[in-house]
Amino acid sequence: MGQHNHKIKLAEWALNSKFSALQESLALANQKDILSFALGLPSMEFFPKEKYLEAIAYLLNNDQLALQYAPPLSSLKKHIISLMKLRGISCDESQVFLTTGAQQGISLLIKLLLEPKQPIISEEFAYPGFLQAVEPYQPNFITIKTDLTTGMDVDEVNRLLSSGARPAFIYAIADGHNPLGTTMSYEKRQRLVKLATNFEIPIIEDDPYGLLHYDDMLLPLLAFEKNWVFYVGSFSKILAPSLRIGWIIAPENIIPKLAILKEGSDINSSTFNQRAVSIFLNDFSFEYHLSILRSEYKKRRDAIYNALKQYFPLEAVYEKPHSGFFIWVKLPKDINTYSLLPKIIKSAQVAYIPGISFSVQNDNSGNNCLRLNFSHCSVEEINYGIRRMGQLI
Amino acid sequence: MGQHNHKIKLAEWALNSKFSALQESLALANQKDILSFALGLPSMEFFPKEKYLEAIAYLLNNDQLALQYAPPLSSLKKHIISLMKLRGISCDESQVFLTTGAQQGISLLIKLLLEPKQPIISEEFAYPGFLQAVEPYQPNFITIKTDLTTGMDVDEVNRLLSSGARPAFIYAIADGHNPLGTTMSYEKRQRLVKLATNFEIPIIEDDPYGLLHYDDMLLPLLAFEKNWVFYVGSFSKILAPSLRIGWIIAPENIIPKLAILKEGSDINSSTFNQRAVSIFLNDFSFEYHLSILRSEYKKRRDAIYNALKQYFPLEAVYEKPHSGFFIWVKLPKDINTYSLLPKIIKSAQVAYIPGISFSVQNDNSGNNCLRLNFSHCSVEEINYGIRRMGQLI
Repeated sequence: MGQHNHKIKLAEWALNSKFSALQESLALANQKDILSFALGLPSMEFFPKEKYLEAIAYLLNNDQLALQYAPPLSSLKKHIISLMKLRGISCDESQVFLTTGAQQGISLLIKLLLEPKQPIISEEFAYPGFLQAVEPYQPNFITIKTDLTTGMDVDEVNRLLSSGARPAFIYAIADGHNPLGTTMSYEKRQRLVKLATNFEIPIIEDDPYGLLHYDDMLLPLLAFEKNWVFYVGSFSKILAPSLRIGWIIAPENIIPKLAILKEGSDINSSTFNQRAVSIFLNDFSFEYHLSILRSEYKKRRDAIYNALKQYFPLEAVYEKPHSGFFIWVKLPKDINTYSLLPKIIKSAQVAYIPGISFSVQNDNSGNNCLRLNFSHCSVEEINYGIRRMGQLI
Repeated sequence: MGQHNHKIKLAEWALNSKFSALQESLALANQKDILSFALGLPSMEFFPKEKYLEAIAYLLNNDQLALQYAPPLSSLKKHIISLMKLRGISCDESQVFLTTGAQQGISLLIKLLLEPKQPIISEEFAYPGFLQAVEPYQPNFITIKTDLTTGMDVDEVNRLLSSGARPAFIYAIADGHNPLGTTMSYEKRQRLVKLATNFEIPIIEDDPYGLLHYDDMLLPLLAFEKNWVFYVGSFSKILAPSLRIGWIIAPENIIPKLAILKEGSDINSSTFNQRAVSIFLNDFSFEYHLSILRSEYKKRRDAIYNALKQYFPLEAVYEKPHSGFFIWVKLPKDINTYSLLPKIIKSAQVAYIPGISFSVQNDNSGNNCLRLNFSHCSVEEINYGIRRMGQLI
């Protein structure tokens, strides 16, 4: 056996593809005794377990189609329309497309918009799941710098587009940026959307954290422009990740194209989960649930920010995030966060993700940076973990 | 609004892509009063609803990670290994890869093996989900005729490969062929696998129906060769489709490549469903369950075959299927099953899928053919529906 395997001809991109730091960390984070600031895990205490079980019992006892093949669930789309209202967006059912988490939303939009080796615009540091999704297309990355307080350098986007760059799309996270924790300023949102519209470049707006804001909420890019912004949302951070339910809001005429793509990918997401969540949401106040999540995660955000102030070197640079799950820390230049990680895991029993894992161009710019998650650990764990990390750094 | 949309540049393949007959039929089949022989739906009475609810209650009460992000579930892979033993296959966990139904298995293998516009080998009539999955690659189809009693024309495959054809893969359904209902002969299985090995061409073996055989079981292609056969299995037909759980059995060194692809596609399938099914299977005899499915579906297979004999024109050609959910009927040459369908739906309240929907080259060869499903309707409904169809034909 085995001796033939190396002869199997794989698609070109697959030859050099590597396992992502994220997937490796998922295994790591599940180890006992490790305090993980590595992944974007929501805190388990806010999962509505009992009520969800009630919804499933109702589903299995009352819905003939609970376990059968069925089309994407219309009633769940209606719940998503209500949720989007809380996000400042008004849309209708013909613009809502159900996916297997936000990741599938991103992946399907890429497949729809991107030809192999085309240019795309992304920030210098990007969500690894996005990088995994575009990898098979071997795109030509045009990367943009990000200001930690105001977001993507929109002037640079303007310069690029004005001088003839024609990317297949711009990838953007306006709120709770992953990995940078940044919130894009209102003024930059307006300008970025205007550029996209004028130059006819679609924006993929990845918005898993938009409803988890700890200060004022800003409107998503979609609020400024419905035709050139393709919005991706998710229940993973605000309800439960293992159900894998996300959605796209896109112009109505794009939805049938997405449906064809999705059918080829997996026929459908779990309609069992769609039906259970839809029943669950009938008796659920998302406004109240979100207010609890915001107030709890805000405490953790404050805790990690204060702990960094107290225990990390004075030269460390970071901003207090207004939303999302992450804070980005820039350490003194001589510290390499990638080679530091195994030591920190071993000596401090704490995990994080080094900056290099998010670097789109794989250059040195993130070598002294790291991403810390603050949603998963308690305030006490955050204090303890950051103190131990600080001592070692 | 709307006036900009036509300017969005989609990937080339998307411009001409069409909604599949399958997706259209899914909506149709859910209409009341229509007796549908159209889709591959399992019969709902065999879904183990009560026991599944018990498993979910146990899961939500006992498993901390029920609703959290988590890696693909090892214990479910062990259950799949046991199930594959019933299929005559021995494999270990490192060869099992979990997917969102068989469709995602097929789609990921295609992405791994196929470059745009490469040639691939398929039969003249193929599963539409497979065609949807390859469509974005705009492959060069090399199509092979199928003998309704012995399966794919392996001599023709030999001729093609011997004269230099080098497809990225061969797509094959050896048991319960969709749409043809054919079972490939033992001798052809051996020869096809030998050809694939000698010419170093991977086979994607799509096997959703292999455990649903109504006469003797034949070993899948995978049993003859582990290195060049990539096997795709599913719980959809033997347990419940809405959970969307399938799997790939592939050489161990291919699994990490699939993991990268899947991570980019959707991070993971619903691990909630994986955990629930794994708990459910702890106390479940699949052997017993399969014996019930086989005996019930066998009655329906016999019923549709006998009803066709009784009510369809003498010139109609069809074989009694040994496994799966479908029977393929060739009507007299002057009958066009595509233009007949709306009349049959209207006058007989019966639905089927016309042959043209499965035609890979979109030529006339299937114009007088149709696919009938016999798993979803009861014996009485089958008799009634086929009689009404026969009267109109």
